Amino acid sequence: MSIKLNENIQKIETSLIRRFNDMAVRQNAELFLTLGEPAFNTPDSVKQACVDALYQNKTHYGPNTGIKELREKVSEFEKRKNNLDYTPDEVMITNGSTEALTCALFTILNPGDEVIIPTPAFLLYEMIITYTGAKAVYMDMSANDFQISKKMLDEYITDKTKAIILTSPNNPSGTIFNADTLENVRAAVKDRDIFVICDECYNQLVFTDEKPKSFCNFSDMRDRIIVCQSFSKPYAMTGWRLGYMMAPEYIIKHAMKAHQFMTVSAGTFVQYAGIAALDFDPSQFVAVYKKRRDYVYDRLVKMGFDVIKPDATFYIFPSIRKFGLDSYEFCKRLLEEQSVVIIPGVAFGSEGNVRISFCVDDDVLVKALDRIEIFVKNLVKR
Amino acid sequence: MSIKLNENIQKIETSLIRRFNDMAVRQNAELFLTLGEPAFNTPDSVKQACVDALYQNKTHYGPNTGIKELREKVSEFEKRKNNLDYTPDEVMITNGSTEALTCALFTILNPGDEVIIPTPAFLLYEMIITYTGAKAVYMDMSANDFQISKKMLDEYITDKTKAIILTSPNNPSGTIFNADTLENVRAAVKDRDIFVICDECYNQLVFTDEKPKSFCNFSDMRDRIIVCQSFSKPYAMTGWRLGYMMAPEYIIKHAMKAHQFMTVSAGTFVQYAGIAALDFDPSQFVAVYKKRRDYVYDRLVKMGFDVIKPDATFYIFPSIRKFGLDSYEFCKRLLEEQSVVIIPGVAFGSEGNVRISFCVDDDVLVKALDRIEIFVKNLVKR
Repeated sequence: MSIKLNENIQKIETSLIRRFNDMAVRQNAELFLTLGEPAFNTPDSVKQACVDALYQNKTHYGPNTGIKELREKVSEFEKRKNNLDYTPDEVMITNGSTEALTCALFTILNPGDEVIIPTPAFLLYEMIITYTGAKAVYMDMSANDFQISKKMLDEYITDKTKAIILTSPNNPSGTIFNADTLENVRAAVKDRDIFVICDECYNQLVFTDEKPKSFCNFSDMRDRIIVCQSFSKPYAMTGWRLGYMMAPEYIIKHAMKAHQFMTVSAGTFVQYAGIAALDFDPSQFVAVYKKRRDYVYDRLVKMGFDVIKPDATFYIFPSIRKFGLDSYEFCKRLLEEQSVVIIPGVAFGSEGNVRISFCVDDDVLVKALDRIEIFVKNLVKR
Repeated sequence: MSIKLNENIQKIETSLIRRFNDMAVRQNAELFLTLGEPAFNTPDSVKQACVDALYQNKTHYGPNTGIKELREKVSEFEKRKNNLDYTPDEVMITNGSTEALTCALFTILNPGDEVIIPTPAFLLYEMIITYTGAKAVYMDMSANDFQISKKMLDEYITDKTKAIILTSPNNPSGTIFNADTLENVRAAVKDRDIFVICDECYNQLVFTDEKPKSFCNFSDMRDRIIVCQSFSKPYAMTGWRLGYMMAPEYIIKHAMKAHQFMTVSAGTFVQYAGIAALDFDPSQFVAVYKKRRDYVYDRLVKMGFDVIKPDATFYIFPSIRKFGLDSYEFCKRLLEEQSVVIIPGVAFGSEGNVRISFCVDDDVLVKALDRIEIFVKNLVKR
């Protein structure tokens, strides 16, 4: 039997990150700097809140958009931490920020629409967009220090542009959008029917002294902003599948239908753990990442890499252009010659860089960088 | 700002069940027979398995299609319990059967396709189908004792029919498809490009002595069958959001992409609890439901209702045609006059019946039935 399946889902490619990682596993690679999640375990206070809720039999259906206590907590937290004004009714609890992104894009996109994805970026966005029949348009930021210029926006925005996705801090580059980028985007969208999806799931893993401004802080843009957030990265809760979306009620009222037919709601007792998570201070994690960031950056600079020092996340994204290999070939040979696994930049939609994740144990990091140094020396010799 | 949103999502109506229930809550109704979930709490052994997994820090990302241990357990369980042959690679763990249904329909439907929904049925199906741009086609079974005849299939199947959804046992009628229905569907689809989605999430809450046959047991139909299952109903795990899909690998390989962009995976420690759930014998729950089923059925018959005795689930779906009211009016007046809440059949896409849920405490059930008796006597008098 060969019945015609959905056309869009057949076009979706599975993640190159996963495929590259799988290949490395098959080759019994030794050192993986590929992880997209904290190696830390979830804090005890969060696990305890989950256990308590379980024993209190919070095992029944909860409200579609999330339990009131957590939506209130998120509303209060976002005001205090990020100076954002969203009422509990403008918060929808989701199964990770992945589902928040899907709900957001499902609500706003029609077939034929275009969505600008400033790259490098996590290619989950493209999967969702492709499914809706809209088109993902890559806008490469790598020649502009991972910032967005007016010229780039002029070039990429068309009459079909329905949204732009701002990932700040950025995975994989670890950069944060500066004031110029934010103003450029504001100027470009303000007189057009363009939504701005703010994926800020790394915004608590920031190394700058001052808290950086976000596009979400433009209150005059509020009607067109959809914020997607995650508990995964700041609280080491990747396996919990908990996140949220914040948007005006005219968006939430439709997004909640997508949420309803995809998952009904996030797990009930898991949401009680989410309340405890928002009381946890992740600065001890951030301090560890910052120290490692400094170490990795210094080592890479000494090896001769052109690299931007990341202001956030647990990734660094050095350029490998000078070595005369494309990013896939660079990573493939590093794997074969030194048994070290890092991710080719092409997996994030832009060529010329590689992603090194430093949320691994220190000894793994040191050993891996030693081998990268040998690899690069051999490359230059040839 | 009024940007055009997704056209299909705007067409989706939210559940009438929920709206009716909300209205009753606002009116401070006293007795709710509306619940779509067990009033029991999740068994201790399942909660304990979850707590153990949490303390073992199973809090990190798991594999996209589910942890191997649970997929193996499901494969073994389905063979032993239901005589179904699916390898662990043909099992995908989802966030409830809701997500399994969405993954299934997203994988097979294109805009313009038709999906036959034998009604009465849970209208979640229609939400998903509407989003894909396909069309939900209601095939009313209520004049045929909630079974499917050859004549009905001849009338509803067209060149555009892409799938039929078989919900057995059925919510809201509690009926199980008999051998004739299964053969009629087999004959109708076998030479056509039509998928059969088997939603069998009540198949462990069955009151018959012999285990009923399912469409899934037709091994010659295997290529076109997608099974959607849930942990919610048999193990009182509605708030856990855990289910699974079983299908041939040529379906799974695309469905897993939908799963990936919607939720990534089910919660990791939640999946370990799923293993314990499949070791739990729900027959103690079933015994309670069966006793209540007998009680409710006898009471309704004595009141003069035309009603089919349900062979499964925790619902009963009496006809109210003889009282000269439509189902919404019947339920609305019962709410206003007796403060008893039941769900109008129109909320399940077919007119002339009402759904009474008997997964409530016995004293609530007795009181509510007493009041329904008074209400009906008053109706007849007028």
